[in-house]
Amino acid sequence: METKPTEISSSKMFGGYNKRYKHFSPTLGCSMTFHIYFPPPSPRSNKFPVLYWLSGLTCTDENFIMKSGAQRAASEKGVALVAPDTSPRGLNVEGEADSWDFGVGAGFYLNATQEKWKNWRMYDYVVKELPKLLSENFLQLDTSRASISGHSMGGHGALTIYLKNLDKYKSVSAFAPIANPINCPWGQKAFTNYLGDNKAEWEEYDATCLVSKYKDVSATILIDQGEDDKFLHDQLLPFRFGEASRNANVPLLLRLQPGYDHSYFFISTFIDDHIRHHAQALSL
Amino acid sequence: METKPTEISSSKMFGGYNKRYKHFSPTLGCSMTFHIYFPPPSPRSNKFPVLYWLSGLTCTDENFIMKSGAQRAASEKGVALVAPDTSPRGLNVEGEADSWDFGVGAGFYLNATQEKWKNWRMYDYVVKELPKLLSENFLQLDTSRASISGHSMGGHGALTIYLKNLDKYKSVSAFAPIANPINCPWGQKAFTNYLGDNKAEWEEYDATCLVSKYKDVSATILIDQGEDDKFLHDQLLPFRFGEASRNANVPLLLRLQPGYDHSYFFISTFIDDHIRHHAQALSL
Repeated sequence: METKPTEISSSKMFGGYNKRYKHFSPTLGCSMTFHIYFPPPSPRSNKFPVLYWLSGLTCTDENFIMKSGAQRAASEKGVALVAPDTSPRGLNVEGEADSWDFGVGAGFYLNATQEKWKNWRMYDYVVKELPKLLSENFLQLDTSRASISGHSMGGHGALTIYLKNLDKYKSVSAFAPIANPINCPWGQKAFTNYLGDNKAEWEEYDATCLVSKYKDVSATILIDQGEDDKFLHDQLLPFRFGEASRNANVPLLLRLQPGYDHSYFFISTFIDDHIRHHAQALSL
Repeated sequence: METKPTEISSSKMFGGYNKRYKHFSPTLGCSMTFHIYFPPPSPRSNKFPVLYWLSGLTCTDENFIMKSGAQRAASEKGVALVAPDTSPRGLNVEGEADSWDFGVGAGFYLNATQEKWKNWRMYDYVVKELPKLLSENFLQLDTSRASISGHSMGGHGALTIYLKNLDKYKSVSAFAPIANPINCPWGQKAFTNYLGDNKAEWEEYDATCLVSKYKDVSATILIDQGEDDKFLHDQLLPFRFGEASRNANVPLLLRLQPGYDHSYFFISTFIDDHIRHHAQALSL
C-alpha cells in the first residue's frame, strides 16, 4: 500500500494549482485524499508556508477547494492551503455511515479510544502524519511555518489542535466552530462513542476547556460567527469559548456577522480576512 | 400551477443575498428553479441592473452560485446576477436523461422544432419569459439594463442570444464558449435532435454564423479560453468565432489563458474581469 501521495487531479486557479492527492494512511489504516492549493511561484520566496483547513460534518477534502474562493487571497499572499478529509473512509465499520453527524465524514479531529472506532485518529493524522508527509514529498512547502483554520466541526478541530500545539502553529482562526463540544448534542454523541465515558478525556478535545489550560497564547484568535446560523445556540456555543478566553486573558476577536448562516457563502464572504490574519502571523 | 416565483432558499453573501426561486414556466411546461444574487442596497441607486449567467452542460442554477465567487465583484459593482437552469426537467420525455450532453441539463438555449422535444424552448425562456417574470416580481431589478454571460454551452447561449438581441443586452462575455456548434460533435448531436435537418435553422443558433450577420455590434465581446481546456480544439472552436468577428469588424477580446482548463476554477480566476466588463457597459 502506497503511503507516498499520488496526484489524482490538477487545476490551475489564480495562477497557482489545486492538486488532489491520494495516499495510504498508516495512522488511519485506509486510503485518504487531500487537496493542496499551491500559490504561483514568487520572487520573494521559493517555499510556501502552509495553512491547514479542517472541514465540517459531511464534508470531504473537496468542499473548501470548490466553494470557499480562498485561493484568490492565498495566491496573493503566497500561502499554500492544505485541506484533508474529515474521517477515515471505506473501512466498513458497522454503523459508520448511519448518521451524518457521526462516523464517516465526522472524525472530530480526535484519537478515538474505543476499540470499535480505533481507526478514527484524525488528531494524529492532521498533527503528525500529514505535516511529515508534506515535508517529505513537497519541497515547495515549508511546514515549519504553519497555521490552522476550519469550519464548524473543523473550527473545533482547528482551535483544539492549535491550543494543544502552540509550538507547531503560528495562528488559528475559525468559522462557526463547535466551541464547547462537551456541552452540545453533536459533541456529546461523538465523544461518547469515540472516547467512552471518561469526561477528563472529553475535556482534552474541548476548546473551551483547553483555552483555560493553555494560557500562554499570544497571537489573537480570530472567529467569525453568523448571527443567523441555525446551529449557533444549540451546537456551536462560541460565547462560552469567549468567556473562557476572557477569563484566561487569551486574546480573541469573536466577530458576530449579522444575517449570515452556516454555509460556505458565509465563509467566502470573510475568508480573505482569515487569510490575511494568518499571513500576518506567518510574516508574509 | 404557480407562475409567480416562490423563494425556496436564501443565504447572505458579501452583504447581499443568494436567493433561489421555483416557478411554473408556461414556456417550458414544467416547474423550474433559478437563482438571483441581490447585491446589498446602495446609496447610489435602488434598482440593480441584471447580469444573466447561462451555465454549461449538466449544470443546474446552482453551480455558478456555489462555485464562481462572482458575488464578490457583483456586490462591489451593484449588479444582480440571475442564473437560470439549463433545460426543462421532470417531463419524462423518453431518452431525456440518457446522455449528459443532450436532453436534461443540455437545453442549448434554443427553441426546438422537433415534436418530441417541443418543451425544449430555453431561448424563449431566457429571452422572453424570465425577464418579464423578473420585472413583474422584483421591483429592485431594472431589467431594462441587462447583460449576458455564460460558460461552455452557456457561453454559446450568451453569444447567440446577445447577437440576436442587440437591443436587449448592453454587453456579452463568455468563458470557453461552444463558439461554432454546427461544426462540433456536441452541437451537431443537439441540433440534429432539437432542430432536425434544416441547416438554415442551425445557423440561427451558431455564434460564428451569427456574428457575420449582425455587424452592428459596437460593445467589445469578451471571451476567456483556457489553453489546457481538453474541449478546446474539438468542441469549442473559439478561433472560428475570432476569424468571423474579424471579418465582420466586430470588436472581440479573445484571451487565451495558459494552463487553465474547463472548470469553475478557471471561471473563478477571471470572473472579476467579466463583472467589470459588464459593469462598464451598464454604466456602473
